[in-house]
Amino acid sequence: MKFVTLANGTPDGRLHVASHDGQRAVPAENAETLQQALETWAENATLWQAQYDRLNSGEAADAQPLSADAMLAPLPRAWQWLDGSAFETHSLLIQKAWGQPEVGLNERPLMYQGMSDRFLPPTATAVFPSAKDGIDFEGEYGVILDAVPMGTRAEDASRYIRLIVLINDWSLRTIGPIEMATGFGWLQCKPACGIAPFAVTPDELGVSWQNNRVCLPLQVRLNGEEFGRTNGNEMKFGFDQLIAHAAYSRNLPAGTILGSGTVSNKDYESVGSSCIAERRAIETIRFGKARTRFMQHGDRVQMRSETETGDNLFGDIAQTVSVLGP
Amino acid sequence: MKFVTLANGTPDGRLHVASHDGQRAVPAENAETLQQALETWAENATLWQAQYDRLNSGEAADAQPLSADAMLAPLPRAWQWLDGSAFETHSLLIQKAWGQPEVGLNERPLMYQGMSDRFLPPTATAVFPSAKDGIDFEGEYGVILDAVPMGTRAEDASRYIRLIVLINDWSLRTIGPIEMATGFGWLQCKPACGIAPFAVTPDELGVSWQNNRVCLPLQVRLNGEEFGRTNGNEMKFGFDQLIAHAAYSRNLPAGTILGSGTVSNKDYESVGSSCIAERRAIETIRFGKARTRFMQHGDRVQMRSETETGDNLFGDIAQTVSVLGP
Repeated sequence: MKFVTLANGTPDGRLHVASHDGQRAVPAENAETLQQALETWAENATLWQAQYDRLNSGEAADAQPLSADAMLAPLPRAWQWLDGSAFETHSLLIQKAWGQPEVGLNERPLMYQGMSDRFLPPTATAVFPSAKDGIDFEGEYGVILDAVPMGTRAEDASRYIRLIVLINDWSLRTIGPIEMATGFGWLQCKPACGIAPFAVTPDELGVSWQNNRVCLPLQVRLNGEEFGRTNGNEMKFGFDQLIAHAAYSRNLPAGTILGSGTVSNKDYESVGSSCIAERRAIETIRFGKARTRFMQHGDRVQMRSETETGDNLFGDIAQTVSVLGP
Repeated sequence: MKFVTLANGTPDGRLHVASHDGQRAVPAENAETLQQALETWAENATLWQAQYDRLNSGEAADAQPLSADAMLAPLPRAWQWLDGSAFETHSLLIQKAWGQPEVGLNERPLMYQGMSDRFLPPTATAVFPSAKDGIDFEGEYGVILDAVPMGTRAEDASRYIRLIVLINDWSLRTIGPIEMATGFGWLQCKPACGIAPFAVTPDELGVSWQNNRVCLPLQVRLNGEEFGRTNGNEMKFGFDQLIAHAAYSRNLPAGTILGSGTVSNKDYESVGSSCIAERRAIETIRFGKARTRFMQHGDRVQMRSETETGDNLFGDIAQTVSVLGP
C-alpha cells in the first residue's frame, strides 16, 4: 500500500491512499490522519488495501489526481523521531578526513533523538538562519513504526515496521562538531527534516526489502546535477536492530519514525554520496581540502528512489534553501 | 493560575483549573487538554482566570476534590522536550569527580532533545530494564512555552513562558557516559520523565520568579529521608536564554517543555543535591569513591517545592522504582 497526506489546513493533514503509480488518491477510510491509521492499523488495513486495489484497477470513481503542491510529509509531525547512523563507510570517511582513529562503527548502534514536531513537505522551501552554518542535506531511509514495547529484541522487531519512507535530514555542519563535543548531541544542528510524499508498506519494495534494509539506490541531485546514487543495502545494522536499540529503556509510541542515517557505500568513488559533508570528507582525503561548498540561498536538492522497474517509489523530494541572515 | 490534568482514558487526559491550594478543580472551559489550552491561550486565559478566582473564593459549586491517583503529568505528552544543564556547580562537581578539566559551563548553553511522547504521572511507578544501569532521579524546573518563532532573542523570549513545572528527569547513569562519548547524545540513558501535577503561571511564584529563574528550594527525599533542598536561583542561563538557544534554527511549537537541568548549588555541603550522580561526585571528591548507591527495585523518590508561605506550589512527585530484569 501507498499513503500520502494532503494539506487541509490542519497540522496533521488528511490521509489518502495513493495509487501504485502515485498519480491518484482517495481519502483513507476510517482514519483522518496517518497517526490515526497507525493507531488503528489492525482494524483498518484490509479496508485500505481494498481502496488501494480499486485505485490500481481503475475502479475508484472518486479518485482525485495528485499534485505535488498539496502533499505534506506523510507524518507532518510525529511523537518521536530517532535517527541512526548505520552506514560504516560514512563513519570511516568522516573519521579519516577529521584525522580521528578509523574505527568505523562499533557493536552499539549510533542514534540520536531529533525534533519531531514538524517534518517539512517534500517540496517545501527549507529556511535557515545563516549560510555560515554549513547547510547540508542527508538522504536516508526511514521506517514508521507501530507501538513497540520496551525490551523488544531485534528478532521480534520487524513486525512493528508499518511503513517505509525517504527522508532529507537537514543538517547545519558548522554547529555539528560543537554540539558533539558537549556529549549532549545535536540540537541547533538538526532542524526539521523533509520527507518524500509516499509512505509505503514493506511489500511494495518486493525483493528490495531484504534483511530489514532498503536495497534501493537513493538518487540525489544538487542544483540539477547528479550528486549520489547510494544504495541502502549496506546498513551495518538493520532496522530491526535499530528498533531494539531504541526500545531498550522505553516504549516507542505508534508513529515513531526511525532513520537509517545518511546512506553511504564502500563504492563511493562510483556512486557518490548522500550528503555534502561526506563528499567534502572524500575531497579532504584526496586533495587535502574540501572543494564542494555547503548550500547557499537558492540552492536546490532533489531526492528519489526508483525500483528496478522504474517506479518512483516514494515520490520526489525537491527542496530549495532559503537563508534569512548573512 | 494553576492547571492540573486528570485521567479520563485518553492519552492527553482532561485539563482542569485547580484551586490555589491544590485541593479542588473544575474542568477548564474551552480546552479539553493542556495542549489545546496552550494553542488558544490568548482567547481563553481570561475565562480560566475567572474559573480560578471562583475556585479560590469558594464560589465554584461544581468543584471536585482532587486525588493524587487521578493526576497525570500536566502535559502527558508533548511535541517537544528540550532539557538544559544550566547549573554550573553541577558541571564543576561532575568534572572534578571524573578527573576532567574543571571548566564549568561555557557561554553556550548545554541542551539535549529528549523523548516527549510520554511524561509519567507524578505518582506513577517508574519501570526500568535493569538496576545495573544506574537508576537515578534528577530534580529540575521547567517551563512550558507558547509557540516561539525561530530566531527569537533572549530579550524577547520570556513573553513565551506560559507555565512553570517541576520535573523528575529519570536517568540511567551507567549508559550516560557511553552515549556521551559518541557525540550523539542521550537516548537509552533518558527514559520518560515524571512531572509534578500542577503547572502554574509565573505570577503564582510572586517574588520567587526572578530573572527568568525559579528561586525556590526543590525538596528531594529518597526513601523518606531528606536528600536535597537546592534552589533554582543559581541557573547560569535563565529560561529566556535557554529559549533563544533552542529557537536558533527552528520554530518551537506551543507546548514545548524546556528544562533547567538538575538543580545544583554552590552551597551543596548544606543543601545537598537533586540527583544521586551529583552526591556520588561529591563523595568521590571527598572520600575517593562514591558511597551512595543508585536506585533499586522498590526505592522511592519524592519531590516538591514550597514557597516561603508554605504553599506546595507544584504538588508532589512520589515515584517508586520497578526493575524488570537483573
